[in-house]
Amino acid sequence: MGKIESPLSRLQALGLELPSVPVPIANYLPAIRHGNLVYVSGHGSVGAGAEKYYGRVGSDFTVEQGQQAARLAALNCLAALTSVASLDTVQQILKVTGYVHSEDGFTQQPEVLNGASDLLVAIFGEAGKHARTAIGLRQTARSFTVQLEMLISVKE
Amino acid sequence: MGKIESPLSRLQALGLELPSVPVPIANYLPAIRHGNLVYVSGHGSVGAGAEKYYGRVGSDFTVEQGQQAARLAALNCLAALTSVASLDTVQQILKVTGYVHSEDGFTQQPEVLNGASDLLVAIFGEAGKHARTAIGLRQTARSFTVQLEMLISVKE
Amino acid sequence: MGKIESPLSRLQALGLELPSVPVPIANYLPAIRHGNLVYVSGHGSVGAGAEKYYGRVGSDFTVEQGQQAARLAALNCLAALTSVASLDTVQQILKVTGYVHSEDGFTQQPEVLNGASDLLVAIFGEAGKHARTAIGLRQTARSFTVQLEMLISVKE
Repeated sequence: MGKIESPLSRLQALGLELPSVPVPIANYLPAIRHGNLVYVSGHGSVGAGAEKYYGRVGSDFTVEQGQQAARLAALNCLAALTSVASLDTVQQILKVTGYVHSEDGFTQQPEVLNGASDLLVAIFGEAGKHARTAIGLRQTARSFTVQLEMLISVKE
Repeated sequence: MGKIESPLSRLQALGLELPSVPVPIANYLPAIRHGNLVYVSGHGSVGAGAEKYYGRVGSDFTVEQGQQAARLAALNCLAALTSVASLDTVQQILKVTGYVHSEDGFTQQPEVLNGASDLLVAIFGEAGKHARTAIGLRQTARSFTVQLEMLISVKE
Repeated sequence: MGKIESPLSRLQALGLELPSVPVPIANYLPAIRHGNLVYVSGHGSVGAGAEKYYGRVGSDFTVEQGQQAARLAALNCLAALTSVASLDTVQQILKVTGYVHSEDGFTQQPEVLNGASDLLVAIFGEAGKHARTAIGLRQTARSFTVQLEMLISVKE
């Protein structure tokens, strides 16, 4: 990818928009910065618009729908990042922890999370490649189909 | 809050006591320090006294009881912190990861964890505000109602 | 332990071999390094050879079998580490997060994870002691019996 393309322009080229920063209605923060590391809170698969995913993959949703849910949660994480650092300052997406609301017997959590991982690489190139853990949950907070948290290094 | 108030005095003003450091009976540590970061192990909702919470929120316990369980787990995390750094050296509670033992269909894990988040802000003020992920588990270790782990930055 | 023993020689003295680096078949990495910290992705209880553990502790497997599964996942994490740093450069295993595929009512996730924790201390001595969180999951990715992720500090 050309260096002149910004993460935001790549995001827009994918036909995507950065949602507004998710506002926690409690004593915690969407993201917090410590030095050049940003710890992004867990964010769920719900958009500002009509798009939202509540329910289990393996019964309520297919793997493909789960991937869309993962993309949505990833966009919310990036929006949360912008509360403390701009997309242009991203040095590396270091870690993605992904929780997939899973029907018993559903084991393709990694495939579901590829929806997020692929998006991160499409936006940031090599800087979007990360360590990852894929976790299945019987019951997620709010019943989100996917919840993601991220650890991101940014330039000083 | 006045600067002359210490975290410990605020904690005591809330009628709370710091429990003794939880002792892992295995080859791991209650907390570990690396530079100015302290990684606190997962600690459960059991007190030194009679207070303890084992079982699921959404069936065995209400949200309010879950919040008490979350407070208890948070106090255990702070006690664990003191094995490597004093409360007075806390610069910022960076991250709280909270696991809530959840009945199927129970989706208010964030409200449960507010019990911990509100306590941290009551004790540390702005330094108590953190990134957070709320996770529902069908079966927790020891059957704890709440398990919390924390990442905390401390002064050199 | 004598300083002349390397982690690899201790591992071999235990009759163990380091598996080949697990290759993620997606846009993420087995491990990533940031400064002197290595974030190791979640790795499951499957070996290069015949040894593999899929299924729940508390029904499909005993605690002792779960401990073997935890050892296997730990070896995969160490193999992943070697994609970015050698075993000899390990300064401290800082954090282990362990997910145990659990039957309802099974609460001995900490005992299962001791399989990994004991191995780390056998290999690295004091440098193998870590903060830890033990998590029970109703359904893991790929149905792994144990999944582990690690945070490891390494020498410059």
